[in-house]
Amino acid sequence: MAGATRERTMLAVVKPEKAAGAEIREVKIPTFGPTDVLVKVKVASICGTDLHIYNWDRWAQNRIHPPLIPGHEFCGEVAAFGDEVTSVKEGDFVSAEMHVACGKCLQCRTGEAHICQNVKIIGVDTDGAFAEYVVIPESNIWKLDPTIPQEYASILDPLGNAVHTVLAGEIAAKSVAVTGCGPIGLFAIAVAKAVGATSVFAIEVNEHRARIAREMQADYVLNPAKENVHDIVMEKTGGLGVDVVLEMAGHPDSIRTAFDIVRRGGRISLLGLTSKPISLNFSEDIIFKGITVQGINGRRMYQTWYQMTALLKSGKLNLHPVITDRIPMKDFSKAMERLKTGEASKILVYPNGVR
Amino acid sequence: MAGATRERTMLAVVKPEKAAGAEIREVKIPTFGPTDVLVKVKVASICGTDLHIYNWDRWAQNRIHPPLIPGHEFCGEVAAFGDEVTSVKEGDFVSAEMHVACGKCLQCRTGEAHICQNVKIIGVDTDGAFAEYVVIPESNIWKLDPTIPQEYASILDPLGNAVHTVLAGEIAAKSVAVTGCGPIGLFAIAVAKAVGATSVFAIEVNEHRARIAREMQADYVLNPAKENVHDIVMEKTGGLGVDVVLEMAGHPDSIRTAFDIVRRGGRISLLGLTSKPISLNFSEDIIFKGITVQGINGRRMYQTWYQMTALLKSGKLNLHPVITDRIPMKDFSKAMERLKTGEASKILVYPNGVR
Amino acid sequence: MAGATRERTMLAVVKPEKAAGAEIREVKIPTFGPTDVLVKVKVASICGTDLHIYNWDRWAQNRIHPPLIPGHEFCGEVAAFGDEVTSVKEGDFVSAEMHVACGKCLQCRTGEAHICQNVKIIGVDTDGAFAEYVVIPESNIWKLDPTIPQEYASILDPLGNAVHTVLAGEIAAKSVAVTGCGPIGLFAIAVAKAVGATSVFAIEVNEHRARIAREMQADYVLNPAKENVHDIVMEKTGGLGVDVVLEMAGHPDSIRTAFDIVRRGGRISLLGLTSKPISLNFSEDIIFKGITVQGINGRRMYQTWYQMTALLKSGKLNLHPVITDRIPMKDFSKAMERLKTGEASKILVYPNGVR
Amino acid sequence: MAGATRERTMLAVVKPEKAAGAEIREVKIPTFGPTDVLVKVKVASICGTDLHIYNWDRWAQNRIHPPLIPGHEFCGEVAAFGDEVTSVKEGDFVSAEMHVACGKCLQCRTGEAHICQNVKIIGVDTDGAFAEYVVIPESNIWKLDPTIPQEYASILDPLGNAVHTVLAGEIAAKSVAVTGCGPIGLFAIAVAKAVGATSVFAIEVNEHRARIAREMQADYVLNPAKENVHDIVMEKTGGLGVDVVLEMAGHPDSIRTAFDIVRRGGRISLLGLTSKPISLNFSEDIIFKGITVQGINGRRMYQTWYQMTALLKSGKLNLHPVITDRIPMKDFSKAMERLKTGEASKILVYPNGVR
Repeated sequence: MAGATRERTMLAVVKPEKAAGAEIREVKIPTFGPTDVLVKVKVASICGTDLHIYNWDRWAQNRIHPPLIPGHEFCGEVAAFGDEVTSVKEGDFVSAEMHVACGKCLQCRTGEAHICQNVKIIGVDTDGAFAEYVVIPESNIWKLDPTIPQEYASILDPLGNAVHTVLAGEIAAKSVAVTGCGPIGLFAIAVAKAVGATSVFAIEVNEHRARIAREMQADYVLNPAKENVHDIVMEKTGGLGVDVVLEMAGHPDSIRTAFDIVRRGGRISLLGLTSKPISLNFSEDIIFKGITVQGINGRRMYQTWYQMTALLKSGKLNLHPVITDRIPMKDFSKAMERLKTGEASKILVYPNGVR
Repeated sequence: MAGATRERTMLAVVKPEKAAGAEIREVKIPTFGPTDVLVKVKVASICGTDLHIYNWDRWAQNRIHPPLIPGHEFCGEVAAFGDEVTSVKEGDFVSAEMHVACGKCLQCRTGEAHICQNVKIIGVDTDGAFAEYVVIPESNIWKLDPTIPQEYASILDPLGNAVHTVLAGEIAAKSVAVTGCGPIGLFAIAVAKAVGATSVFAIEVNEHRARIAREMQADYVLNPAKENVHDIVMEKTGGLGVDVVLEMAGHPDSIRTAFDIVRRGGRISLLGLTSKPISLNFSEDIIFKGITVQGINGRRMYQTWYQMTALLKSGKLNLHPVITDRIPMKDFSKAMERLKTGEASKILVYPNGVR
Repeated sequence: MAGATRERTMLAVVKPEKAAGAEIREVKIPTFGPTDVLVKVKVASICGTDLHIYNWDRWAQNRIHPPLIPGHEFCGEVAAFGDEVTSVKEGDFVSAEMHVACGKCLQCRTGEAHICQNVKIIGVDTDGAFAEYVVIPESNIWKLDPTIPQEYASILDPLGNAVHTVLAGEIAAKSVAVTGCGPIGLFAIAVAKAVGATSVFAIEVNEHRARIAREMQADYVLNPAKENVHDIVMEKTGGLGVDVVLEMAGHPDSIRTAFDIVRRGGRISLLGLTSKPISLNFSEDIIFKGITVQGINGRRMYQTWYQMTALLKSGKLNLHPVITDRIPMKDFSKAMERLKTGEASKILVYPNGVR
Repeated sequence: MAGATRERTMLAVVKPEKAAGAEIREVKIPTFGPTDVLVKVKVASICGTDLHIYNWDRWAQNRIHPPLIPGHEFCGEVAAFGDEVTSVKEGDFVSAEMHVACGKCLQCRTGEAHICQNVKIIGVDTDGAFAEYVVIPESNIWKLDPTIPQEYASILDPLGNAVHTVLAGEIAAKSVAVTGCGPIGLFAIAVAKAVGATSVFAIEVNEHRARIAREMQADYVLNPAKENVHDIVMEKTGGLGVDVVLEMAGHPDSIRTAFDIVRRGGRISLLGLTSKPISLNFSEDIIFKGITVQGINGRRMYQTWYQMTALLKSGKLNLHPVITDRIPMKDFSKAMERLKTGEASKILVYPNGVR
């Protein structure tokens, strides 16, 4: 074992039992095996999934086994590592892919580990990053250039979702609609523009999010509660519809819009999760239009990470407008309340206080 | 104008008015323009669409403008052609792509003419091939090698649907399910096997069709009314599901099965038209599985035609089991009755009597 | 025929006979057929091919049949058109694809018209655009948004070469080298950056061109006569080499560099024409590295044109640094001399004087 | 550690020193680590590389460090395995991917492990399979269905080369030429036919190989020493040339032929290794024709293995004609002599005598 931590305990956000809420507790620093890396967390960020876990909704009740330390978006420094680890050294600046793929199923062995049959997610299935330390298998560590800001390094997981979605098909010189402007949708606007989308429509009812979409340089920001999105998109695209829709909301209205505004031969990439069945007219919506509909899950391991790193290093992405709040970890519950207001977008959490 | 016909009139199947039925009538041989080809029809074949037109169902009421000569699957000989035609001569053995694309829309100008915004279909929008002669624009004529049997040459339109669907994604060394074994589904079995699909599941409730599916060399023929299709497919695929589903039925149960049996990362290609909305759980059915769903329309102009011709010439396709009936054109109404029984698959029509 | 020109004659650059040089002559305004468009040329631009024709080198001697009006890059206004033309009206702002494909060969019928077996090039095989008027088939006319500057509209042909080359494979978040910074190479720098290339190496010996490459925002501009290009590229790419090489020079040294600096699994897209054989070690240069080498010809009809138009309209391309000279058509021979100095890049020609 | 071998020593082919030749020696059964599998070799097969090692040619002198047990094509039974191995049990029927990729380089992390920067090959860089036992990392073990014949199971490595090459681009309904009919070329004929190639030209000067090519169902077998290959291919392809060339010889004449007979827009996949530079006219051979040239290395891990297994299980491949000799391991040197005659194709080696 190389490296070490003098402390024996740490502070962490803990979901202690099968009920709503979470607590800040002092717990043992986790142990790690010969192929693991112990990372001192610098910044973690909050995902919608964390709110589901906090609220203990139906999804959480089916998936989560307390006690659990949540948190699956973060960056930090290597504090220690197991004997068989060769690719990092103490102090390295890192983030991590939190989907731990089995490596043995068909999908894993054919370059599709992001849809591994046996995936475990750190921060969902095992203890995560809302803590002073987190343990990550060496295979999942992503080393970062020190020139990448910590704030950006803490949001690579959702940025990776956006990069994966945008680059799941042709995008250069295309018109693109992003339906739903949560953090991943907002990131997708920036990514799409950076890789050559020539016009980007952001479709969002929440005015806070719509404002950020404008700051992300969306060409058109449309509010379906107030505007006829279909007609405006048709007018701006010469009656064709958009080449690509990135569906980030998972809401039935949003999905309906996606199928209405995509052009013949276009692509709809679905990332936003739905909670109930949605009805489609397959003939009109898919077959006669000859479109392609893709389900998007996670991030490609590790192609998306290379792409994301290259985009960040080249300075092509301005993500600052998405980061609306920075809080010390002890105020985790306040962050949950902020999220519920719909005013916050990405909230950063500092296990050792905001620096 | 080169070539000529001595006759002035011909027999044709005519849909005379906005009502069910059709008649055999003597009508004028159609005139043709400088870029058109007049073809003497040798064999035509009957599509499900022709039954819709005959029955005068809702779709037909919205689309068809009688009087109309239906028929969009055929082969024949060049009888005459306009002054600007350069690529055929009298007596050439030909078939034709009956989707006449505009050539000027985005789709036409980017290799996607099969989803042209302004397509006209001969035999649906203008007079077709259930007649002794039919007029086809030179651009849409497909010259055939005389070694290709007339029976096969008359069914290139639906065979092309099958080829387009099968080859819309990777297929070599894949497991494939064909849901729905009408003629196009049956052709798809033969095509999939010919291009390297390593196991083909045919899923069909009609026993006549199931029998033909076996003759087409499907590896497994499953009857969802009697068997647990999902469980059998999972057992035969090591618990994975199939790599590719070719959906040819358009029935809600069939589409449900398609999503249930496709593997993570697999492809569903939808060709079968649906008449009502279908409900999907997008998260479970598409997103978590990371699948791709494609709408398939027509045939690629003219890539599919080259592919189909090469497959036929190489002798890789045995399509005979699908051709169940051969009738003289005067018995057209009897053919319609045969189709309604569900016992017939592809019915060939001979404008000059069965040869 | 719609529209008309009052004049009967026009000025044009004419290659009168099989010898070096060219003359400005008064010639008849060309006649046009029922499917043609007569365009009044606003701006034409000069290609390296025009210099070959002017110099009457070996290639020109084999290909060109004087008398000929050269010129295949231009924009203008519709002056008149044939009876069967439906898609333009007088005064429309247009450019054109000057490769007139046959429409009947395998390549044309399968979306590969840019490598048509029977292509004729306007300005090379028939009279071109260094004239007050030029005749173009309607199928090849490209209508332009009036917001696109005339200077850019006159260089769509070489810009299209660049767009086709850049987008012939994955490019987003990739490192890219452009070997050879003639106008197409310079355009390729701008296009690659606009569609998400994260670092662009421009490799060029001529200092004038190198200066423009810097103005086009290349991240690194390297002079192989003075620097070790291989070592610098390796250093800047973490020892990997670049993901993509766009070979625009056709020089043996440049091609050697392309193979030396591309990474394992990378892409080399070859556009620059070579005049003599080049020797490669296939095992080391291609096979062990598992690279892909593509021959690039012309522009995709008309996908490239849509892409190019979208990129221009969105303001993602600054091409001004490439346009170094603007001359009235009467000074055509002076333009040829300027090109020979190596100081000029793209030279614009004004048939009616510089506006 | 699970499983065990009672013996302590085994017989193996050993390259004892830096010189031509090899010996059968009694050596220690190799030890294995916690993530390794010890396999009892049933059948191994001989590759051209083994002859290079035996002959101690320039390539071998640069790459091989004696003493070495060669052999990288085999099948066998699991005899024992390390403590951390979870996916096999004693007696399992297995083969293996002998390229041991590093798992940490860009290529490995983006689905391109077959071109890993740091690959080690078992049987080339470390002791291989011409022995009673061989040690393989668990990650590289490929479990086989017992229905697959041992003879086929022993040649998956070169069959994988063929499958990788054939499926490196579109192949269904294409015309294909295989230049060079060593074992991999012969396998490629069978694979191409199985996945829908509609005409296959085998090009080979050696009459023994040509005879086997006919047995593999090549549609045309051409001898460039006696026939005008270019003219025959053009005649049989309607003057177009073939869609795909699979270059398996690495000989300058063969590569010249590949470029001469590929059609505009076609693909050349290069697998055959060359020993000296080859000269190409890039403009005529690649650029004007708009072709794609690919370097092919190894087999995709593990997509090719899944494809190959599916093709074998479905019975689509008859490989028997390629297996010309079966020898007990003690006669290894005789096998080398047989190979030199050019009469043998694939030779199988039995460490425990021919069964």
